[in-house]
Amino acid sequence: MKPVSQITFSKLPTVAYLGPEGTFTEQAARKYFTNFDVNYDEKPSIRDVFLAVERRDATYGVVPVENSIEGSVNITLDLLYKLKVRIKGEIIEKIHHNLIVNPYTKKSEIKIILSHPQALAQSRVYIEKNFSKAKLVETPSTAIAVSKLTKMKTAAAVGTELAAKTYKMKIISRNISNIRQNYTRFFVLCLNDSALTGDDRTSLTFTLKHEPGALFNFLKPFASRGINLSKIESRPFKEKLWRYIFFMDFEGHRENKKCKAAINEAVKLCDTLKVLGSYRKGISYITDSKAP
Amino acid sequence: MKPVSQITFSKLPTVAYLGPEGTFTEQAARKYFTNFDVNYDEKPSIRDVFLAVERRDATYGVVPVENSIEGSVNITLDLLYKLKVRIKGEIIEKIHHNLIVNPYTKKSEIKIILSHPQALAQSRVYIEKNFSKAKLVETPSTAIAVSKLTKMKTAAAVGTELAAKTYKMKIISRNISNIRQNYTRFFVLCLNDSALTGDDRTSLTFTLKHEPGALFNFLKPFASRGINLSKIESRPFKEKLWRYIFFMDFEGHRENKKCKAAINEAVKLCDTLKVLGSYRKGISYITDSKAP
Repeated sequence: MKPVSQITFSKLPTVAYLGPEGTFTEQAARKYFTNFDVNYDEKPSIRDVFLAVERRDATYGVVPVENSIEGSVNITLDLLYKLKVRIKGEIIEKIHHNLIVNPYTKKSEIKIILSHPQALAQSRVYIEKNFSKAKLVETPSTAIAVSKLTKMKTAAAVGTELAAKTYKMKIISRNISNIRQNYTRFFVLCLNDSALTGDDRTSLTFTLKHEPGALFNFLKPFASRGINLSKIESRPFKEKLWRYIFFMDFEGHRENKKCKAAINEAVKLCDTLKVLGSYRKGISYITDSKAP
Repeated sequence: MKPVSQITFSKLPTVAYLGPEGTFTEQAARKYFTNFDVNYDEKPSIRDVFLAVERRDATYGVVPVENSIEGSVNITLDLLYKLKVRIKGEIIEKIHHNLIVNPYTKKSEIKIILSHPQALAQSRVYIEKNFSKAKLVETPSTAIAVSKLTKMKTAAAVGTELAAKTYKMKIISRNISNIRQNYTRFFVLCLNDSALTGDDRTSLTFTLKHEPGALFNFLKPFASRGINLSKIESRPFKEKLWRYIFFMDFEGHRENKKCKAAINEAVKLCDTLKVLGSYRKGISYITDSKAP
């Protein structure tokens, strides 16, 4: 029999995510990694998730990048430009808002409703109809709103099913959102991106020369090859006043012949270009057993 | 002598702005309209400013549209797309943050610092150096932070010079921002845009056909005429999942021959196009006496 000191424990990969526990990000991360043995580590900010991956404290990181109603998460774009982390995967989660209370709270006792400002706005119709006199209180996240219920007996929170479970609270109304098509897109971060699957997307970031036609010229290598852009977005280039950093997503893998040629041509037509990663296109979660 | 009932008072034009009193928006509005007799009307939200102009309760509206560090103000872009209001002018204001206290408060007594999260973040270096133990409290605007000082004797606020004046508070440190190039761009809204001045910019919004090369093709009429794009940005097209509304600014007036031809060609290459307005290019404020 081996002495205890010789038994080696294989360390599980860690998934850092934007916390606290019970956020939509945790829910997305758990679905993506559902068939894998991983440890989860909640981080207080998107920046901390990026840094955990960059410093190898975590193998993967999960952060929101875009919501179908509210638009991009600016800090995620800014950090993708700045840091050495790459995009390994994409998760698209339908956002369901639920009205959650302390199990001892009756519906008629609710005087305060807590949540993130976006969740409150997206549940406005339900709240006005059912709790027209309730005081609305904004919190930094939906999960924090639910966590506060442990000490509040006349309050309700708008939050996720996972948060209700995590903090042992009770859902009294499901899917209270006034918006039907409410999805959030998350990125799975890693130090490497993913291999070609045949159903991929590539994200890149670039800065342009300051001259007429600069964006038009940059897009030509993609347009001439029939490559479909799924998104283009700009953010301020903080060091240069009123100049912009662009973020572009297109269909295909950076190792596809067509995509590779387009990137190689485009790189000559701009100031700077960085491929953020190629990854399998947005699915809600991985159901097969292939490594993510 | 005319009877009193026959004396007519000419009504001054009203400028609605994003309040409360003492915001950067009020400061920008007052500089833009400095040589004109107007009434000011503070509104609780950007939406209320747009609606005041659309319903003719105000002749002009002033709202922030973009900050050189934080990026676009999404609600302003979304309302420009949705409502019938046009862009009459542009104001570019340098953002100065000041540390403000109640006149009875000594620097050594400060235990709490209040402000909008962006203002706190942009003054972080100064705060950490001088008030490392202070508790930071977030408020919905810098002006609200300053207004709260009237009832707080151990607090300071990060805010504008105008807010300090408005609420009769005292500035104890000027220009405490850790960011040098911090500018906010405001739009002056009206039911009409402006006449040609020779130093103009035009803003438009468009949606594209869903096909490869759609953006490239749309940009061609501008690139081929050497028209300089100063900005292009996308926002979610809320009704169509993962489709986008684009916002584009270019140099020149929509009545310039070149610009007019480009717009007329581009309109055939997209799904929808709306010219939001042509206006004199960003200056801090109007110093001559021409009507805005």
